[in-house]
Amino acid sequence: MAKAPGLYAPVLRDSIADLYRDPPIGQRLTVEGWIRTRRTTRAVSFAELQDGSTLRALQVVLPHDKIPRDQIEADLHTGAGVQVWGQLVETPDRPQPFELAAEGYRLYGPADPASYPLQKKQHSLEFLREIAYLRPRTRTFQAVFRLRSGVSFAIHQYFQERGFVYVHTPILTPSDCEGAGQLFQVTTLPLGAVPRRADGTVAFEEDFFGRPAYLTVSGQLEGEMLAMGLGRIYTFGPTFRAEPSHTPRHLAEFWMIEPEMAFYDLERTMDLAEDFLKYLIRYALRNHYEELAFLTERYEPNLLAELESTKESAFLRLSYTEAIEILTRS
Amino acid sequence: MAKAPGLYAPVLRDSIADLYRDPPIGQRLTVEGWIRTRRTTRAVSFAELQDGSTLRALQVVLPHDKIPRDQIEADLHTGAGVQVWGQLVETPDRPQPFELAAEGYRLYGPADPASYPLQKKQHSLEFLREIAYLRPRTRTFQAVFRLRSGVSFAIHQYFQERGFVYVHTPILTPSDCEGAGQLFQVTTLPLGAVPRRADGTVAFEEDFFGRPAYLTVSGQLEGEMLAMGLGRIYTFGPTFRAEPSHTPRHLAEFWMIEPEMAFYDLERTMDLAEDFLKYLIRYALRNHYEELAFLTERYEPNLLAELESTKESAFLRLSYTEAIEILTRS
Repeated sequence: MAKAPGLYAPVLRDSIADLYRDPPIGQRLTVEGWIRTRRTTRAVSFAELQDGSTLRALQVVLPHDKIPRDQIEADLHTGAGVQVWGQLVETPDRPQPFELAAEGYRLYGPADPASYPLQKKQHSLEFLREIAYLRPRTRTFQAVFRLRSGVSFAIHQYFQERGFVYVHTPILTPSDCEGAGQLFQVTTLPLGAVPRRADGTVAFEEDFFGRPAYLTVSGQLEGEMLAMGLGRIYTFGPTFRAEPSHTPRHLAEFWMIEPEMAFYDLERTMDLAEDFLKYLIRYALRNHYEELAFLTERYEPNLLAELESTKESAFLRLSYTEAIEILTRS
Repeated sequence: MAKAPGLYAPVLRDSIADLYRDPPIGQRLTVEGWIRTRRTTRAVSFAELQDGSTLRALQVVLPHDKIPRDQIEADLHTGAGVQVWGQLVETPDRPQPFELAAEGYRLYGPADPASYPLQKKQHSLEFLREIAYLRPRTRTFQAVFRLRSGVSFAIHQYFQERGFVYVHTPILTPSDCEGAGQLFQVTTLPLGAVPRRADGTVAFEEDFFGRPAYLTVSGQLEGEMLAMGLGRIYTFGPTFRAEPSHTPRHLAEFWMIEPEMAFYDLERTMDLAEDFLKYLIRYALRNHYEELAFLTERYEPNLLAELESTKESAFLRLSYTEAIEILTRS
């Protein structure tokens, strides 16, 4: 954190999440973030400060005898970016375990309450889509982004701990991969004036690579080749499918994981897949319980229970024939 | 590893790298990999087995009284994929610390010595480019890929440990970013028959997204927006530049890291950049010394020394004006 002006040896903290992990009660410190809400009484104002490091806010108490009330009412609106300094004090008789007794603040970026679109109430996802640049300040998007970040890291950690080599397979490619999906073409030819050869075909020799190029639909070809030398590899990168189904299950752009292992038989491959999924669930429950609990409460009532039960269950394994039989019977 | 047939309780090992880390001397075990070289004397054959987990090979000794010499000479050529089982024994009077006293092997994939292109001698990078599918079996490519994998993981670990959120910013985009580079266009329109509107312009409403789309040249726009809610974020993903300079310094496709931090001033940003680079160097030296030593010996005599000195040096910081003065004076 930046040093607060005129403060003797402020305790520099990295984030509100750090305060909740290990509260330095009684110490003077400086925090930076955005005002979530503010409420002003006669003698003091209460502001909830968020900084994106946790879904929880820091309660900041601003006494009007130290900081003029009219200044607070002019500055500290929902969305304002501020630096605040003061002392962290325990609050055993309040819902939150501690609060910051503010001694001063600096306004970095004001927010006009007449036009700032986010308010304390819960907004619909449709409304938030209209203000995409502000969505990251909502708890919904913070929960989703932090969970995705944590699980992405867990994917790397799982494979790295097991000797898999992370490889970046080409995304621009001249080849289709097993016809896995429809391809996007990548070109620098002007679409309004595509150059032609004498026989009328497209003059791809004038394109960037001198021949047709596409976005990959899979790193499998390169991944298998690399596994035949490095033993075990994985990819984790963006993949593109030009399928004309515009549904949440058919994305044009998504991130995909492709492990490839030399000398693995089917049994060992299934073991890996099951162990991998359970590892990710355990990682998420251990490190992102706050986010999962929020999403459970707000969106998916069974989310936590399903994750808990999946990580404890042995996955059923059956043959293709058995699966078809179950499907035709159902 | 797969269980060896007819072997009592083989010690299952994950890789040759594991054997070197913690050699289970005296135990019976099974390994799988590819023959790097084989040499046959009257009573025994010696094979070097590699599995991609380390630049080092496992010395395998095959006694002809247990495994017929003519079978070994027919099967075990450079490049053959095999499973070998036996006992790990110490070899205090040989260059390598231990070897596998083989009791049997299974040939997974033969390699015809008349046509298999990789041999023990050092091949030129130009030759290896012609057999790209076999390059991952060379120590040069194994060193480069494992180093890149390790440093990629270190990039994630550095930011995750410091509360940065890993975000996947869009790669398909309708927008340019600060004119950072020339764009690739992404389309599903047939280049040989681009549809036109009545006024002769391209009918982008028939393209996949209903309007022109490009490959991103930077995630900065989305990254800054996300940092204004999540506090600290980083991207690490592929980026595309359609610059017509075909040099090693102007790649059309490369992976880029973009951290974005709210409330960081210039000093703190420079601190982060310097600390980040030194962290990556320390990580590489600690976890990939084998690969760095190989690349130093084979390609860049100053590599290790430069990394060691960089991680110990304070980075010089100077203003743009000072930098220009130094350049004009030099």
